[in-house]
Amino acid sequence: MTTTDTLARTLARALPPIAYAGNPLDRADAVRTDPVRLAAVQAAPDAQLLVLDGLAPEFGADGGLTWAPLQSAPDGADLVFLGLDEAGRGCFAAAAPGLGGSTAPAAPNLRALLDAMPARDLAIYGGARSLVDWHARHRFCARCGHATQATKGGWQRSCTNADCGADHFPRVDPVTIMLVEHDGCLLLGRQPRFPAGRYSALAGFVEPGETVEEAVAREVLEEAGVRVRDVRYVASQPWPYPSSLMIACHAVADDPTITIDQNELEDARWFTREEVSAALEGRADAPFGAPTHTAVARHLLEWWMAHRG
Amino acid sequence: MTTTDTLARTLARALPPIAYAGNPLDRADAVRTDPVRLAAVQAAPDAQLLVLDGLAPEFGADGGLTWAPLQSAPDGADLVFLGLDEAGRGCFAAAAPGLGGSTAPAAPNLRALLDAMPARDLAIYGGARSLVDWHARHRFCARCGHATQATKGGWQRSCTNADCGADHFPRVDPVTIMLVEHDGCLLLGRQPRFPAGRYSALAGFVEPGETVEEAVAREVLEEAGVRVRDVRYVASQPWPYPSSLMIACHAVADDPTITIDQNELEDARWFTREEVSAALEGRADAPFGAPTHTAVARHLLEWWMAHRG
Repeated sequence: MTTTDTLARTLARALPPIAYAGNPLDRADAVRTDPVRLAAVQAAPDAQLLVLDGLAPEFGADGGLTWAPLQSAPDGADLVFLGLDEAGRGCFAAAAPGLGGSTAPAAPNLRALLDAMPARDLAIYGGARSLVDWHARHRFCARCGHATQATKGGWQRSCTNADCGADHFPRVDPVTIMLVEHDGCLLLGRQPRFPAGRYSALAGFVEPGETVEEAVAREVLEEAGVRVRDVRYVASQPWPYPSSLMIACHAVADDPTITIDQNELEDARWFTREEVSAALEGRADAPFGAPTHTAVARHLLEWWMAHRG
Repeated sequence: MTTTDTLARTLARALPPIAYAGNPLDRADAVRTDPVRLAAVQAAPDAQLLVLDGLAPEFGADGGLTWAPLQSAPDGADLVFLGLDEAGRGCFAAAAPGLGGSTAPAAPNLRALLDAMPARDLAIYGGARSLVDWHARHRFCARCGHATQATKGGWQRSCTNADCGADHFPRVDPVTIMLVEHDGCLLLGRQPRFPAGRYSALAGFVEPGETVEEAVAREVLEEAGVRVRDVRYVASQPWPYPSSLMIACHAVADDPTITIDQNELEDARWFTREEVSAALEGRADAPFGAPTHTAVARHLLEWWMAHRG
């Protein structure tokens, strides 16, 4: 154990936990892949169904999730086995036959409620949302066009065309999101869809044929015209709109000249440590608005304040 | 810049580069997303086509890739714009109409040729293979079952059903692969499909709703019954069979008791530093065979020997 490992862990402890992480359910792969065990869990009287309105949760009195008996699932719904809770009960979500699914992020009013949801419930919701949405948007086989059906407790869809028989698995799309540092300042950008005044870390999907580090360098060059070196992994987060794995990194730039891709960004600027601090504190004189608490971009900014200070 | 950053970079330089990384082509997103610029690159007389036999490359005299004029692409093929080479030429790959695609890794004889391919060409091939295979296996819309067509230079497929219109993007599937350490020994496992004597790092797909770190802990517990802490990112690698992003990590176990999931592993054992060293050197008395040079598992083992020694 090096001194730095210890230091990194100490600092990590000082940061708030990452939102949408920390799902307390046991995914119980041995149950999921065993039809007999899965059927028993599903038939048990204490099996629970996550109550959803479309893809949104139904909020309980405490702002958390709501559960109902599994028997209340709509007829013909695709059931997803989310796992076993602390009491050993099977927890499920359902993709109803008519559900359309959506790749869009949560609407602002919903987002505000989710930002205030207890961490445990938010993590369960995130995983469930990605899976239910995936079922809704993958009812057909991409290989042959025939109908697919949910299999393996909702963790797979299988083609019903005997000549094809392709199996399909839930998508998880890796996305890099990065703080770029130059001379003690951070590069942050503004997308046109952001709330007024908000700046955040640049981000983009990892493409086939590149490493995380290469994706970071390509995205920053494409979006802001800035070349980076020394890309370093910081943290990761599952982000269920619709199924991203956010891979949060730090990188260093030697030349601060910015050339914006106006198809992606409305603005990008370098902010000083004092400016970032003011934004994280939500001060009235802050030159920009920081990302919300559930965004890994905010975690990255807090990590930077704690770690590079 | 801390001492450890410097140390980490020095050690990183001492390790061989990661196979399938280092693609020298400029992905030229500004060309890809501009139909006029893309058409000009495609119509240029120096535009090149990567020669493939199904999904396998045609090997040149130097063991590298073979290119042909783009005009030689099969009629009706879906073209993928791979990027611009150092001379500014457009480089393309083609998914022919009859191509079936395959999720299987390269066959052993092909794998041996790929292991010897020049690094630059291997990186180009990997990205191209993932994309061509994706087109072959995604000719239909998973949302509505209608035909899709390639768009945006082959980096998207769009549904031809006007009532649907869904856009689909190439998959990149994040996979965790991890060295687990206990008392100076490493946990390695054997899948039944491995060559005789081979042991390698445990690995598994990241699922919706979990972080990289959570996926590492879950996989090691599922496959080997070992609980881990202090998961640490080491490196990443694009792995084109069919479209994985390998996320290589290190973790620590306090209790070395192994309980194997026999559906996943044939064996799992702790190996000493001396045993790992013997395997990496390919010594006749080594207790196991190390992964091949192109596998990120071998990079992890070499990183561990250099870093934790």
